[in-house]
Amino acid sequence: MKNLLIISGTNRPDALSPVIAQHYARLVVEAGQQAEVIDLRDLPADFAFSALYENSGKNPDFNVLRDRMAAADKFVFIVPEYNGSFPGVLKAFIDGLEFPATFTGKKAALVGVSAGLLGSSHAMSHLTDILNYCGAHVLARKPRLTKISAALAGDNIVEASYIDQLRKQIAELIAF
Amino acid sequence: MKNLLIISGTNRPDALSPVIAQHYARLVVEAGQQAEVIDLRDLPADFAFSALYENSGKNPDFNVLRDRMAAADKFVFIVPEYNGSFPGVLKAFIDGLEFPATFTGKKAALVGVSAGLLGSSHAMSHLTDILNYCGAHVLARKPRLTKISAALAGDNIVEASYIDQLRKQIAELIAF
Amino acid sequence: MKNLLIISGTNRPDALSPVIAQHYARLVVEAGQQAEVIDLRDLPADFAFSALYENSGKNPDFNVLRDRMAAADKFVFIVPEYNGSFPGVLKAFIDGLEFPATFTGKKAALVGVSAGLLGSSHAMSHLTDILNYCGAHVLARKPRLTKISAALAGDNIVEASYIDQLRKQIAELIAF
Amino acid sequence: MKNLLIISGTNRPDALSPVIAQHYARLVVEAGQQAEVIDLRDLPADFAFSALYENSGKNPDFNVLRDRMAAADKFVFIVPEYNGSFPGVLKAFIDGLEFPATFTGKKAALVGVSAGLLGSSHAMSHLTDILNYCGAHVLARKPRLTKISAALAGDNIVEASYIDQLRKQIAELIAF
Repeated sequence: MKNLLIISGTNRPDALSPVIAQHYARLVVEAGQQAEVIDLRDLPADFAFSALYENSGKNPDFNVLRDRMAAADKFVFIVPEYNGSFPGVLKAFIDGLEFPATFTGKKAALVGVSAGLLGSSHAMSHLTDILNYCGAHVLARKPRLTKISAALAGDNIVEASYIDQLRKQIAELIAF
Repeated sequence: MKNLLIISGTNRPDALSPVIAQHYARLVVEAGQQAEVIDLRDLPADFAFSALYENSGKNPDFNVLRDRMAAADKFVFIVPEYNGSFPGVLKAFIDGLEFPATFTGKKAALVGVSAGLLGSSHAMSHLTDILNYCGAHVLARKPRLTKISAALAGDNIVEASYIDQLRKQIAELIAF
Repeated sequence: MKNLLIISGTNRPDALSPVIAQHYARLVVEAGQQAEVIDLRDLPADFAFSALYENSGKNPDFNVLRDRMAAADKFVFIVPEYNGSFPGVLKAFIDGLEFPATFTGKKAALVGVSAGLLGSSHAMSHLTDILNYCGAHVLARKPRLTKISAALAGDNIVEASYIDQLRKQIAELIAF
Repeated sequence: MKNLLIISGTNRPDALSPVIAQHYARLVVEAGQQAEVIDLRDLPADFAFSALYENSGKNPDFNVLRDRMAAADKFVFIVPEYNGSFPGVLKAFIDGLEFPATFTGKKAALVGVSAGLLGSSHAMSHLTDILNYCGAHVLARKPRLTKISAALAGDNIVEASYIDQLRKQIAELIAF
């Protein structure tokens, strides 16, 4: 697995997704592979206007992330549930990427995150539709990490069953 | 129908959705009601960072649109297909609205728009999930306007079957 | 609300959906309306072959249920999650109904049921797509009754928060 | 690709899906692999009652199909759009299969079929949710064969662009 990229799928300042993304990266390293993280908090504030459509590819700060996405071989999306789906910023980010080269024929894995007991099903179903449309194959296993606040302590996921699911997903993604 | 708001669901500069939204508004007037249009090209360029999450309600320019959404009784979303769903900017816009008051118990209608022969099914299915989650009821009839370039001339929809579908939708939305 | 029909959406012999459907009917009566229940365990065993497609309308036993569906004004679907969606038998039942008269312009409400902590999101999203396609408007509120075994005692739902959600849904459906 | 199984996803007597399934099998052979077809018209008429739930595995005629599904390594589903999704019979068939062994870790490809110009998007999205839940990875490319009657002549697909899409899908499925 040459180039695995983990996308923390929200620009919310106090989001927990970046913590999960970093822990996920450490689990990938434990599995003998390398991984990098893209954090959507690093998006240029006006990217939805300066980096999409006819401005696609014209925002140098956005292009740093855009080029890393284009160069990746496999993706992991950390997907918080927000208003019955994933954050709009994640889709706007995808809308600014190089199409179809970024995703065509590549592999992706999804991790759903929610504050409550339910959630993230729709977010991951919608994102699967989008990634499939863009040409990326999506791994069947899509862990749903609910009640996420209680599952984290500092920089770590401490809920053992979640770690177990993520390790299984990583093993499958490496073989996918 | 006291306050009908039509949302042109993209910030793409040369989008056709604003044309459809304006024609839709004229059809609503023909049906004896009033309608206003919100055009997502009018969003502040940095709204995804300055008007969401802990900044919710703090961007005066965004709040003009936010308040109009909160005051509306019924909604029509003009939804272009983009990367297998609707534009991310539309969801980011929704993510910045007052929750749950903006949508709870209100009614919404969707119009799908696509450049090609297929398209906009997923966009409208995803948006239905989101609006239902936010508490808005969605009208069953969801016209799909495909090959949209050929269906427009200047400021008008000229494809008669599309006009017919929109008129039926408007009649149903008024009664919804 | 002249004619409200509650569909217990599975033919599984030991299903809990019929218990929920009957309790739901009693809650409707408490709200001052009448309700009847259709139990998919009453379907003819071979209906998927004897009552669909070119045999549509030709199976007298199926037609008893078919006619009750066509005569109803509003629907409530009790939807157990099964293999990541609702039971196939429910869709096969819908496939045998009179189209489009059964659903066009009518209103429907959905209740999701699952054995585990998660579940029934996809089931209700898929069914919403189908009912919308068939012309029925779906109520935004879609309660998800998880860990259902622990929420039932004998013929009753005993989880107070579930009863509360169902009462709210009933009030909204009556006004829908 | 040791064992590829193509499922014609409807029991409709005059369905076109079996024609597509057989042509698909020939294209697989051209690509140097073997393929077999399961036709849902061969299901026992009462399978939804005699082969599901507590009767799972107890219907010998159903078990012939069930065992072939369990033994397959890769799947192709030919999916006609019916009432805004795929036929209920296809999901009922899946509901009777051995779970989770039938699908876990296996690969699946989907082909959408519709009579009209639109269609089969929702069918394939719903089926993707279900197959992912059951543990099968779904190929990103999901051809939508619209206006299918005009694309067939006798036992053959004659629309060249459809053949081209299917050949691309087969090549990808072999490598998946």
